[in-house]
Amino acid sequence: MKKVAVILSGSGVFDGSEIHEAVLALHAIEKEGASWHCFAPDIDQLHVINHKTGEEMDEKRNVLVEAARIARGNIEDVEKLHADDFDALLLPGGFGAAKNLTDFAVKGAECSINTHVARACRDFANAKKPAGYLCISPVIIPMIYENGVKGTIGNDAATSAAFDAMGGVHTDCSVNSIVYDEEHKVLSTPAYMLAGSISEAASGIEKLVSKLISLT
Amino acid sequence: MKKVAVILSGSGVFDGSEIHEAVLALHAIEKEGASWHCFAPDIDQLHVINHKTGEEMDEKRNVLVEAARIARGNIEDVEKLHADDFDALLLPGGFGAAKNLTDFAVKGAECSINTHVARACRDFANAKKPAGYLCISPVIIPMIYENGVKGTIGNDAATSAAFDAMGGVHTDCSVNSIVYDEEHKVLSTPAYMLAGSISEAASGIEKLVSKLISLT
Repeated sequence: MKKVAVILSGSGVFDGSEIHEAVLALHAIEKEGASWHCFAPDIDQLHVINHKTGEEMDEKRNVLVEAARIARGNIEDVEKLHADDFDALLLPGGFGAAKNLTDFAVKGAECSINTHVARACRDFANAKKPAGYLCISPVIIPMIYENGVKGTIGNDAATSAAFDAMGGVHTDCSVNSIVYDEEHKVLSTPAYMLAGSISEAASGIEKLVSKLISLT
Repeated sequence: MKKVAVILSGSGVFDGSEIHEAVLALHAIEKEGASWHCFAPDIDQLHVINHKTGEEMDEKRNVLVEAARIARGNIEDVEKLHADDFDALLLPGGFGAAKNLTDFAVKGAECSINTHVARACRDFANAKKPAGYLCISPVIIPMIYENGVKGTIGNDAATSAAFDAMGGVHTDCSVNSIVYDEEHKVLSTPAYMLAGSISEAASGIEKLVSKLISLT
C-alpha cells in the first residue's frame, strides 16, 4: 500500500488547515487505495481566530495539537517526517499554510518558511517523489523547487504575482482542474481559493490525489 | 433545493463534533442536491481535550465558536433553528454530542439534554420531518421520540443498554448500514462507533443522507 505524508497547519480555515480540504484529501487518499500519515509543526499558531466573528482571540494554540483534531490524534511532529518512509507528500490549504507553515500572509513574497517543514518538503523534491499542494499552500512551491517551477493558487492577482516574484511560474487554473509540473513532479489545485462549495473543492482535490498516487 | 439543518457540537472527536463525520455529512448533503445549514449551542464545552495526548487542557472553549471552524463561519446559534425553515435535520457524532449537546458521557441513561437542542429536535419530530443521527448522537433519539423508537449506536453493549433504558429499542447495525424507524422518520448509523477509516464512516453516512433526502 502506497503511503502519503500529509502536512497540516492547525484546524480551521482562518488560522490553520482548511478542514474540508484536509478531510477530502485524506478520504481521497483512502479511495485511491493508499494510506495517510499526518504531520504538523510543534509550534504556536500565529494567532487564534474566532471563526464565527472573524476576530482575533486572546489565546495561544499549538499547531500540532490543533491539527490532531483533524487526524483524530493520529499525527506526529513534522520534524520526524522523512521522504524515505513515504511515497508522496500532500499539503492541504487554509490560512495556516500562510500563517504557521510560512509567514506568507504577513510578508508576501518576502516570506520565510518553518525550517522543519522546508526540510521535509525538500526531502521529497530531492528524492524526486511526487508532491501535491492545495489552495494557498502552493506559495510554498517556489521556496522548495528551482526557479521556473509551475504551480497555481487559482487566479488571485496579488498572490499569483507573489508566486512569480518568488521564482515560480503561476498558471491560472479552474477549481476542478490541476496544474502539473512534470519535471519536478509537483501538483497544485486551487480548492477553496476558488471553490464555493465542498463539492467544488472535492472536484480538484480528488483529481490531484488520483494523479499524485499514479506518480508514485 | 431541499434544506438540511445540521447541529454541530464543537470541532474535534474527543470534545466536539467528529470532524470527518461532519465534513462527510455536509458533502453528502451537497451530492444529494440539497443545501446544508449549520447550528450549534452557544455554551461552553464540557472541557477541552488535547487531541494529540488525550489529556484535558486548562482552557475554556465555546461550542458555537469552535463548531464554526467546520462550517467556515457559516453557522448560527441553535436557538434560532426552527423546523419550519428546513426539510430535514442531521446530527453528526463525536463526543461533543455526549458532552455538550447532552451529558450522556458523564451520566449515561440518567443524562439531560441542552434545552435549545431538545426543542429544535422535537420541532422536527412533531412536524414529521425526517432526522438522521450519526455515531454516538443517536443517544438523543430516545430523549426526543416516544418509547419504542428504533435506533443504533453500532454494537457497544453499555451504550446500547443505556439506549434501551431511556426508552429506545436498540438495533445492532454494521458500519455500512443504517437503521430506519419508519413511524418516526428517524435514521441512524454507527459511523465512528465502528468505523476504522474515513471510507468506512462514509459508507454509512452517504447511505443515511441519501435516505434522509428521499424522505423529504
